[in-house]
Amino acid sequence: MHVTIVHVHVKTEHIDDFIVACKENHLSSIQEKGNFRFDVMQQDQDSSRFVLYESYQNENAAKAHKDTNHYLKWRETVADWMASPRQGILHRGLFPISE
Amino acid sequence: MHVTIVHVHVKTEHIDDFIVACKENHLSSIQEKGNFRFDVMQQDQDSSRFVLYESYQNENAAKAHKDTNHYLKWRETVADWMASPRQGILHRGLFPISE
Repeated sequence: MHVTIVHVHVKTEHIDDFIVACKENHLSSIQEKGNFRFDVMQQDQDSSRFVLYESYQNENAAKAHKDTNHYLKWRETVADWMASPRQGILHRGLFPISE
Repeated sequence: MHVTIVHVHVKTEHIDDFIVACKENHLSSIQEKGNFRFDVMQQDQDSSRFVLYESYQNENAAKAHKDTNHYLKWRETVADWMASPRQGILHRGLFPISE
């Protein structure tokens, strides 16, 4: 599996907006071919920090996500809400073993 | 959902052992009551760095994991393989919405 862990730091005044935008992105992304997980979480000790956990069957499926309308809309929507640049860290998903 | 993201830095000579120990822990953990995810991944650019993504229905289920035989065995097995102390960061899982 091809996993991207995206760390997001959001301006405090846009936390609620960001959650709404991520819900929409999540609901569309989990319907993509080759998507295994598109989980969104908020850090317990700092509500302005989020993690997007994006797991795809392979690199091509992960790349295809970047071309979807819902991703492009999300990216544009949240652009001005970032407190600092997003960081995406690539991983090889080991377990569960990809079918 | 109660999510813990655990960052692990393993001594290079124990990378393969660590993967074997994590597979066993993963296979048992996903059978726990209240467990949603117990994913294990390896950083693409640094094979000595791992992430354990542990998602539980609630805090009690997450705490119960720490009392299981498989967790205690894993903790003892990997103790000497750490290159630096593990870091677990707590999150509130937003999406998918917990049933």
